[in-house]
Amino acid sequence: MFFASDNAAPCPPEVMAALSAVNQGFAMPYGNDAHTARAVQVIRDLFEAPEAAVYFVSTGTVANCLSLATVSPLWGAVFCHTNAHVQEDECGAPEVFTGGKLLLVPGEHGRMCPEALDKAIRGQKPGVVHSVQPGAVTLTNITEGGTLYTVEQTRAIAAVAKAHGLPLHLDGARFANAVAASGATPAELTWKAGVDIVSFGGTKGGLMGAEAVIFFNPEKAFEFELRRKRSGHLFSKTRYLAAQFEGWIAQGQWLTHAAHANAMAARLAEGLAKIPGVAVAPEAAANILFVKLPEETVEKLREAGAVFYLRGDDYARLVTSWATTEDDCDRFIALAAA
Amino acid sequence: MFFASDNAAPCPPEVMAALSAVNQGFAMPYGNDAHTARAVQVIRDLFEAPEAAVYFVSTGTVANCLSLATVSPLWGAVFCHTNAHVQEDECGAPEVFTGGKLLLVPGEHGRMCPEALDKAIRGQKPGVVHSVQPGAVTLTNITEGGTLYTVEQTRAIAAVAKAHGLPLHLDGARFANAVAASGATPAELTWKAGVDIVSFGGTKGGLMGAEAVIFFNPEKAFEFELRRKRSGHLFSKTRYLAAQFEGWIAQGQWLTHAAHANAMAARLAEGLAKIPGVAVAPEAAANILFVKLPEETVEKLREAGAVFYLRGDDYARLVTSWATTEDDCDRFIALAAA
Amino acid sequence: MFFASDNAAPCPPEVMAALSAVNQGFAMPYGNDAHTARAVQVIRDLFEAPEAAVYFVSTGTVANCLSLATVSPLWGAVFCHTNAHVQEDECGAPEVFTGGKLLLVPGEHGRMCPEALDKAIRGQKPGVVHSVQPGAVTLTNITEGGTLYTVEQTRAIAAVAKAHGLPLHLDGARFANAVAASGATPAELTWKAGVDIVSFGGTKGGLMGAEAVIFFNPEKAFEFELRRKRSGHLFSKTRYLAAQFEGWIAQGQWLTHAAHANAMAARLAEGLAKIPGVAVAPEAAANILFVKLPEETVEKLREAGAVFYLRGDDYARLVTSWATTEDDCDRFIALAAA
Amino acid sequence: MFFASDNAAPCPPEVMAALSAVNQGFAMPYGNDAHTARAVQVIRDLFEAPEAAVYFVSTGTVANCLSLATVSPLWGAVFCHTNAHVQEDECGAPEVFTGGKLLLVPGEHGRMCPEALDKAIRGQKPGVVHSVQPGAVTLTNITEGGTLYTVEQTRAIAAVAKAHGLPLHLDGARFANAVAASGATPAELTWKAGVDIVSFGGTKGGLMGAEAVIFFNPEKAFEFELRRKRSGHLFSKTRYLAAQFEGWIAQGQWLTHAAHANAMAARLAEGLAKIPGVAVAPEAAANILFVKLPEETVEKLREAGAVFYLRGDDYARLVTSWATTEDDCDRFIALAAA
Repeated sequence: MFFASDNAAPCPPEVMAALSAVNQGFAMPYGNDAHTARAVQVIRDLFEAPEAAVYFVSTGTVANCLSLATVSPLWGAVFCHTNAHVQEDECGAPEVFTGGKLLLVPGEHGRMCPEALDKAIRGQKPGVVHSVQPGAVTLTNITEGGTLYTVEQTRAIAAVAKAHGLPLHLDGARFANAVAASGATPAELTWKAGVDIVSFGGTKGGLMGAEAVIFFNPEKAFEFELRRKRSGHLFSKTRYLAAQFEGWIAQGQWLTHAAHANAMAARLAEGLAKIPGVAVAPEAAANILFVKLPEETVEKLREAGAVFYLRGDDYARLVTSWATTEDDCDRFIALAAA
Repeated sequence: MFFASDNAAPCPPEVMAALSAVNQGFAMPYGNDAHTARAVQVIRDLFEAPEAAVYFVSTGTVANCLSLATVSPLWGAVFCHTNAHVQEDECGAPEVFTGGKLLLVPGEHGRMCPEALDKAIRGQKPGVVHSVQPGAVTLTNITEGGTLYTVEQTRAIAAVAKAHGLPLHLDGARFANAVAASGATPAELTWKAGVDIVSFGGTKGGLMGAEAVIFFNPEKAFEFELRRKRSGHLFSKTRYLAAQFEGWIAQGQWLTHAAHANAMAARLAEGLAKIPGVAVAPEAAANILFVKLPEETVEKLREAGAVFYLRGDDYARLVTSWATTEDDCDRFIALAAA
Repeated sequence: MFFASDNAAPCPPEVMAALSAVNQGFAMPYGNDAHTARAVQVIRDLFEAPEAAVYFVSTGTVANCLSLATVSPLWGAVFCHTNAHVQEDECGAPEVFTGGKLLLVPGEHGRMCPEALDKAIRGQKPGVVHSVQPGAVTLTNITEGGTLYTVEQTRAIAAVAKAHGLPLHLDGARFANAVAASGATPAELTWKAGVDIVSFGGTKGGLMGAEAVIFFNPEKAFEFELRRKRSGHLFSKTRYLAAQFEGWIAQGQWLTHAAHANAMAARLAEGLAKIPGVAVAPEAAANILFVKLPEETVEKLREAGAVFYLRGDDYARLVTSWATTEDDCDRFIALAAA
Repeated sequence: MFFASDNAAPCPPEVMAALSAVNQGFAMPYGNDAHTARAVQVIRDLFEAPEAAVYFVSTGTVANCLSLATVSPLWGAVFCHTNAHVQEDECGAPEVFTGGKLLLVPGEHGRMCPEALDKAIRGQKPGVVHSVQPGAVTLTNITEGGTLYTVEQTRAIAAVAKAHGLPLHLDGARFANAVAASGATPAELTWKAGVDIVSFGGTKGGLMGAEAVIFFNPEKAFEFELRRKRSGHLFSKTRYLAAQFEGWIAQGQWLTHAAHANAMAARLAEGLAKIPGVAVAPEAAANILFVKLPEETVEKLREAGAVFYLRGDDYARLVTSWATTEDDCDRFIALAAA
């Protein structure tokens, strides 16, 4: 009954197998090897983006920070949701990397409101030195609130960004879950909807520690590479990052794992919603669930070995993963109901 | 015949096995798991340093940069050898992380001359705001020139650093090779000789991408953790970094691999030195060799599939690894001699 | 009828005279001259703070940024009002200098609400690396909303800061006006109320471009000096900054100028409040006034040569200075009333 | 007998008069006033550069750092002389502002050797992420060694910079002295010789604290303005910086002062060279002189009230200014000869 985070699960077999498969002989370092080239192509194919620049890094923090730093100037404002991970959980890393400032955009259920975004951007005056200059917009899908930006909702945000000439970045730490939840293709949920750069998360979906950064327009690729180097994120043995993605995507497991995680959350939601005194927050769409539990239920669950965090407002955050079992869910529900 | 770098070798079996061994069940993220605690203890034991703060990161660049940033102030001068990796091959990353300035100390065969170090430190006036303030000293062992700082030579550098109240950092990308070459213990070659912080390299010795940072004085540990987070280097699934070290050290392979690599370089050196027109640079002590080869020999070797770099001055740099075979060496020698 | 800002006024005679007075012979540079020492003492006396470290810089931006950077760590959160100048009008300079993050605290009429401050600080978890660490609190007095923090209100903010062990900085761009408005002494409105560092503004009060930074605890003085140097703010001919302060304070003009500016704003407020259709925002305490004017009145005033800015919400911001005349005010009122 | 630095002299009368002249009425802040526009035009005329972007800042440190940061990328190498002021006396400020790295170019008498510059630039490999990328070249004229780059010598440096596509910056803290010494016009010694950006120093030539930054190509002007703001260097009352330049240049005093300072140094050199046991360093061209003096002579001079610094190698550095008198020089010579 481990629901604290999807980053606590082990790696699925296809990932371990892929690591073994590339562990043969010498390979040129720093990304100049055939394994890395192959994994780049796998990602391009998956996103129907033959021209995209694709890079592998090891953490979601750096995937987001390098992406934003590459497209937003030193004096840039990066617009994000009030509760975005980049604002709340990165110890200021986005400011360190970009040199700029996050500006917060409100919106219900973890999604920026397009009108609020427009107003926030208008608040920063281009050409006036006293004001940080509009730099980029970043959205998280699946959001920090466990909700989904549909293709339509993504388009609405992109429309505002484009109207102001701003690049749109997607923090896709749980992008696989978003694809599974939306039924859209990776392309539909990104560049076809107006997203310019994606942090395509692997770690929360089962990888050891691997994220892909995708620039659909490769214009600033070398700048990204320099920033990656200068922040200590250029791996010498890149094949071991690349292989994880290759193995994970090869037979479609990236998506079946995500669909499984989503299903486990839905199972929890369904079971918990029936319990008197328990409230499930609306619009949960993927593998994150916020559930209001009576205090004594929380204690009872924890005593029984369930692991999860409480949000400030007494909602429990339950996160499922590829490794969550039906039994985990059912036991949790039964305990909560007892 | 791959001699371009030791970072191009695959991972030895014990490392792959260790990864599989920890790939079981859920584990708390961000270093709060039993695997990581165990690997920290393994390192403390290896260095006879029960109080040390030990952290796992994924690249040598960041191991060095975070170490230096933690101990040298924003306005600090970091003293290093003229040809140190931190000066020549990091795209300015040390300045990015520390906020300060590298100041170069000459010395033969890749080792700083203690007198030159003393003079360089005296050149920066403490208390005078026009001058960067002495911040830290960093040495590389095995040096970029392929030579060794013996325990005595390390002590001599440490004595200068201590006389000025400066912390001493060791860039140990090839520390295993230094231990194997010196016959000293890890403790003797580090804290017993006056080293305060070590970047203990694993990647060049066989790991996928794992380095340990060791603070013998744990006073600034939390500051290091904050800097690691803010630079995007905090892994969620830390167990997979920790396991690599644990597997590598468990049966002493870290050292036997290094000894093997050193022996392969010695074999190359011995064979090549006998060839007329070929000169082996003096004082090679471990797994890096600089060899002056006639231009046509270089071409011939490369045509035959040998991979290696030329230094600016026409010396070939030959690097061996745990995966280098006697046959690789002998074929190279035979081709060079032909 | 110039009401756009108090930084558009010329310098009063005593400032020009003081510059002439020190323009004699050679003087050691970088603050090591008798003129600077004398002006430092003048400030210490004014604040009844014989131990204070006092520095002269040339802009309010840098006075605030260097102050905060000196006391808040790289990973520090600086808590300020939602509409603080450091947040809205500095193009991200505070983040550049401190390395950290501004976190916004709501509150009516430009003053932080102490309870909201307490909640904001509690939101950042000390010891948790994902969260910026509480670093410092900064308040502006006179606030950006034209209101005053009384001694009591300052104490209430200081109590929260102290309860969390945080230093309290005062952005005193219009500190002279605050002293004049409050009737308190500089000491009562600062260190006696719990303020640790003051940016004591001179420019808006009549100086050419001079601000004093006052650390009541001089512990971090040398660190400030290094930061000042590294940001290009160490003047060689410091006597010309120091002299401005000395001349301005000598006969108490700093305060009489401020009292005059406040009186001119009060005169405006009184006159405008009587005009039907015109609304004066409440709690104006010093030399900044927010006044709701009918659109056609704005146009008429501007055509007649009145200079002032409109806030986003259609309130006009009227700022008076030492150089504002009764006639300026009366003409403005008459035009608005016509 | 004050020869410690030219930044210790007072301001000449025309500068004080110019400050008084602009001290009338209200003026729009932040450079949007008629005084500033007029001073910009004066500088454009002086440099025969009608399109140039011209900015006024208050210190030489920031003039150089903002100039370099605007034209060299974050990962840029700035090539300068081994003993350049930016390397030795700025506490790392150039690295703070640019984000990059200074790389040192040797050369006799304070001038970079063009061949050494070419070699240094070639050492940094464009397109290779391990290496900082060539960013800019900066020369100081008058050099830190007191020597002049003639038009020809400037052209030689510019030719190397241009061959590598690099912008050339001139640290002109003593540019007036260089113009006076060379007999060339400001245009001939800058853009006509290939200089792209000039830090035109006023402070050492008599101003209170004012430097002009000149971009002959105004393309990056707004970027400079943002960087100036973010570093706290945007003055509100810009007229007081601008007026200093206007007054100083109006009747040609900027040049007559410099010529006077140069003449005083020449007088010193001539007199001192005749004294047995005293050696004047060769190629002194302007207002800085390095003179080897016997130790007892140094003591005697200092006892008699002469103020000057000793370089590490026992040479005294003597700097003259517009305020140095013939009598100062003659007394110094007489004392040294006694």
